[in-house]
Amino acid sequence: MRNEKPTILITNDDGVTAPGIAALIEVAKQFGRVVVVAPDAPQSGMGHAITIGKPLRLHPVHLFGEIEAYQCSGTPVDCVKLAVDKVLHKKPDFCFSGINHGSNSSINIIYSGTMSAAMEASIEKIPAIGFSYLDYSFDADFSLSQQVAAEVIHAMMHGKLPAKGLYNVNIPQIPIKKYKGIKVCRQANAKWKESFVERVDPHGKKYFWLTGEFQNLDKGKDTDVWALEHQYASVVPVQYDLTDYELLNAIQL
Amino acid sequence: MRNEKPTILITNDDGVTAPGIAALIEVAKQFGRVVVVAPDAPQSGMGHAITIGKPLRLHPVHLFGEIEAYQCSGTPVDCVKLAVDKVLHKKPDFCFSGINHGSNSSINIIYSGTMSAAMEASIEKIPAIGFSYLDYSFDADFSLSQQVAAEVIHAMMHGKLPAKGLYNVNIPQIPIKKYKGIKVCRQANAKWKESFVERVDPHGKKYFWLTGEFQNLDKGKDTDVWALEHQYASVVPVQYDLTDYELLNAIQL
Repeated sequence: MRNEKPTILITNDDGVTAPGIAALIEVAKQFGRVVVVAPDAPQSGMGHAITIGKPLRLHPVHLFGEIEAYQCSGTPVDCVKLAVDKVLHKKPDFCFSGINHGSNSSINIIYSGTMSAAMEASIEKIPAIGFSYLDYSFDADFSLSQQVAAEVIHAMMHGKLPAKGLYNVNIPQIPIKKYKGIKVCRQANAKWKESFVERVDPHGKKYFWLTGEFQNLDKGKDTDVWALEHQYASVVPVQYDLTDYELLNAIQL
Repeated sequence: MRNEKPTILITNDDGVTAPGIAALIEVAKQFGRVVVVAPDAPQSGMGHAITIGKPLRLHPVHLFGEIEAYQCSGTPVDCVKLAVDKVLHKKPDFCFSGINHGSNSSINIIYSGTMSAAMEASIEKIPAIGFSYLDYSFDADFSLSQQVAAEVIHAMMHGKLPAKGLYNVNIPQIPIKKYKGIKVCRQANAKWKESFVERVDPHGKKYFWLTGEFQNLDKGKDTDVWALEHQYASVVPVQYDLTDYELLNAIQL
């Protein structure tokens, strides 16, 4: 570690006004100089979307006391790109995303704007962590999440969690006194079973709402879903080489 | 293979009116019964985004002769979900996405709506392939792409390409006579170097356009970028377990 305070970029996908990002800023500012660039509106489920066909807006906001903060009209990934190129004019030392209101464990990582923002930072070789709390509600109690975030950030800043990595951290929705600690895990094999709700609008036309049921297909005790169901916070190290090497070696075309 | 014709779901991210999807339908209908569910507007760069906060619309379109086709107001991933639940009322036997106008090789897969649609099908255990042609233009000549698509689909339907897999197929922008064949590859380690273009609107307010330069950081001759630069079509087998197992085994918390 250098002696000067590290620069920490904070973003999320629930938008700059979500309580989860305020909770994360409170933790992160103990570790360095925090700069916030987050979406100006909720962007849940945006995955790794970027904005190509329209321009982006960026406005300063005064929401977090002395902390330099901006809202951006784009996606979580846009926020990271814009922060590096136009706000910081350099790469931050760390990028933390969240705290998401809702789980990003297992297959949820694929759909998650929170984790995609952290992944975008990681593609830029910025040490990155996404934090998600299993409580979806707006007025969720983030105290356990903050405790876990502080623990994980401390581990990364002191070399116990390799800084070259990208991490998907999920925090169980349990009373603090039941919390058992952190487990390093693999991503559980799970999926959503879709069922769209069909309705008819006042003009007589059909529309559909996406709903679904989470299905864990994985019996392993080394997964993030298992850890979260057993009062642990889960930490999954993440990579973005999507090559299926097993299949690659098996194919003879 | 069963004796009856397989059901093939076709989608894309450039929208139902893009020439690339028409080119893919022309190929796919030789292999089975084709049903099309595609976005009603371009959705490039949407990644694995899903639509949570607003309802979806689905309308039949008559664009491809006798082929059953729908346009959907959602993302490419929404299209696949809606097709399975509300159009086909079952899983199709195959899902093909594209032909995308532009490359989805290497890191582009992360941002790609085309590949995310195919991945969504794969999560549902539907054999899936995404096709992308390196020519971004609207009036691109898809004849080489169609030849490659026919070859890859034939390989999958006849067991040479394991049907359990998900594949990212990219086609080089070269004259057909220079085409050397298909190479099975890994995803190249590459990134985009962002540079936002800053402008001022007629009301005096700043806005930004995302632009960038593709940077291949990978010297390997076994990558998709290498294959495409050497007149091959690239086929990368893809998976969606993002766990970094190397790091997982190295962490001692």
